[in-house]
Amino acid sequence: MKNIDISSISEFGLIDIIKNRFAVSKDNKNIVAGIGDDSFCFKSGKNNICITKDMLVEDVHFKKDWTNPQEIGRKSIEVNVSDIAAMGNVKPEYAFIGLGLPPKTPEIFIKNLYKGFKKTCDKYKMAIAGGNTVKADKVIISVTIVGIGRGRGKVIKRNGAGIGDLIGVTNTFGNAGAGLALLYKYGTKHKYNKYEHFLISKQNNPKARLKEAQKISKHLTSLTDVSDGLYISVDLLAKDFGKGAEIYMDKIPVSSILKKVFRENKKQLDLALFGAEDYELIFTVPPSRAKFLKKLVPHISYIGKIDSSKKVKYFYDGKEQKIKYLGYKHF
Amino acid sequence: MKNIDISSISEFGLIDIIKNRFAVSKDNKNIVAGIGDDSFCFKSGKNNICITKDMLVEDVHFKKDWTNPQEIGRKSIEVNVSDIAAMGNVKPEYAFIGLGLPPKTPEIFIKNLYKGFKKTCDKYKMAIAGGNTVKADKVIISVTIVGIGRGRGKVIKRNGAGIGDLIGVTNTFGNAGAGLALLYKYGTKHKYNKYEHFLISKQNNPKARLKEAQKISKHLTSLTDVSDGLYISVDLLAKDFGKGAEIYMDKIPVSSILKKVFRENKKQLDLALFGAEDYELIFTVPPSRAKFLKKLVPHISYIGKIDSSKKVKYFYDGKEQKIKYLGYKHF
Repeated sequence: MKNIDISSISEFGLIDIIKNRFAVSKDNKNIVAGIGDDSFCFKSGKNNICITKDMLVEDVHFKKDWTNPQEIGRKSIEVNVSDIAAMGNVKPEYAFIGLGLPPKTPEIFIKNLYKGFKKTCDKYKMAIAGGNTVKADKVIISVTIVGIGRGRGKVIKRNGAGIGDLIGVTNTFGNAGAGLALLYKYGTKHKYNKYEHFLISKQNNPKARLKEAQKISKHLTSLTDVSDGLYISVDLLAKDFGKGAEIYMDKIPVSSILKKVFRENKKQLDLALFGAEDYELIFTVPPSRAKFLKKLVPHISYIGKIDSSKKVKYFYDGKEQKIKYLGYKHF
Repeated sequence: MKNIDISSISEFGLIDIIKNRFAVSKDNKNIVAGIGDDSFCFKSGKNNICITKDMLVEDVHFKKDWTNPQEIGRKSIEVNVSDIAAMGNVKPEYAFIGLGLPPKTPEIFIKNLYKGFKKTCDKYKMAIAGGNTVKADKVIISVTIVGIGRGRGKVIKRNGAGIGDLIGVTNTFGNAGAGLALLYKYGTKHKYNKYEHFLISKQNNPKARLKEAQKISKHLTSLTDVSDGLYISVDLLAKDFGKGAEIYMDKIPVSSILKKVFRENKKQLDLALFGAEDYELIFTVPPSRAKFLKKLVPHISYIGKIDSSKKVKYFYDGKEQKIKYLGYKHF
């Protein structure tokens, strides 16, 4: 057997391996959404129960120099709530926190980490229901969140987009990636201006779009959260299910602050498409509902539409553009 | 703020910190069992849903030299199923596997690890429902299992023991701790005899007592699984809830093979009381049901009884013994 280098397998590649090798038995009719969606959901009586699990590792997902322990705690919860939001009208109810800690971790670090967990769980009226702590070389945070479907609404999966549906997003893209780019380039000792600080704070303090998801979900045909950049997320709703899409790059919303810090239009779009961790939602909706949705959530923008081409085509100013993937691979 | 040394806080200490600081709101009437029990359980319609989460870290919970990847995979699932079994008549339904892997992990290691996960999940008719993979310095395995209460039976918690109840266990103690002691003493290159091999295999291949739990649970007043040695587990059912116990050390069941390898009676009892990872169940039951239970599960032994003394007293041959905690601390 050869020794392969895991660095060459992206997270998505590994999900495929798992999906193919250990696919959930198809005859379990209680399973509503399985491996490969944002959360796993199953029916229990009349309820849909959704479960998501994510692991953050020091120096891979965060650096202690670039953020503070309270932010790390908050972010660990928010990114999991984002996976719950990506299933639609679901209320996150219980959080489980598994911690790996180096033996000499300062007490103040743990206290502030927990403060971050606690405040964020309180914000979502979610109970910290359990967890465990083990010794490790680096800080590891493994969060599991259990959500319960609200009302009779169905869970919104990634696979439901219809031909002609519009592709919508809940807010701007690129801020979080821009913050990370600044930290990579200038480190923590640089004197940042207030706009740069804003972008860095977007990297360290993501917010799950739970309320938005709860408001709009019943109108949607597909839904996911954008954790790895817009470019990958469009593929997740279109190409992964044998559909195509047209994306109008001039319609991708970018914040005025991002434009102040990164003045070049191409750079702004690169950050929006390939910069990760904005945690906005991306969804598809029949055109007839599009205006109504924007009344419910005014920040929504429509950036393209689903077609049957099996390809995702990018347009700028009416002209098709060649886009090459520039994103971050997990390994 | 002082920098405390985490090494001085046992896992139980940290659970206390978490319990006190982040106690689940008492007015959530859906919560059936909370932090500090083996699993967290909540009501969803007519069902009890139980969730457990455990993290195994390389060189803390396993050493790659001392066991093989398939065993590591199996054990990660078994120890979580054991926490589900410790809630009584609950069926483990869905497993989520979070993996941290060093970038240069050999493919064969991952394949065999997954083989271990898969075979064990199949054995329990449990679906691998999701998970994620992240880069890490050492192998980290974070498993979450969701179980669903069977029938109308209630969940059996740690806190229900009545004065006069007998304390029972599902099988022998000390094998797993003995296996670990051998590995620590002689390493992997030693020529072990077949009895020593048996003990080492008990360390590397624990089995959750799920069937036993499902058979006997409705008769029990309290229940937990013995992951950290019998001594600690007796405290969990008695002292933690303001009760006491008498333990008759000559009644603690020890395997004939353990007796062959460790001939000294005191050493056998030390391994039974303080050796971890046997994953047998310990429970309390009213005396009137004790015989019937032994018909259901013939391996059951009764090792003591609950009293109101708030102390756990150990007896050997009718004489009280002074027992000092010799066990393993997680940090």
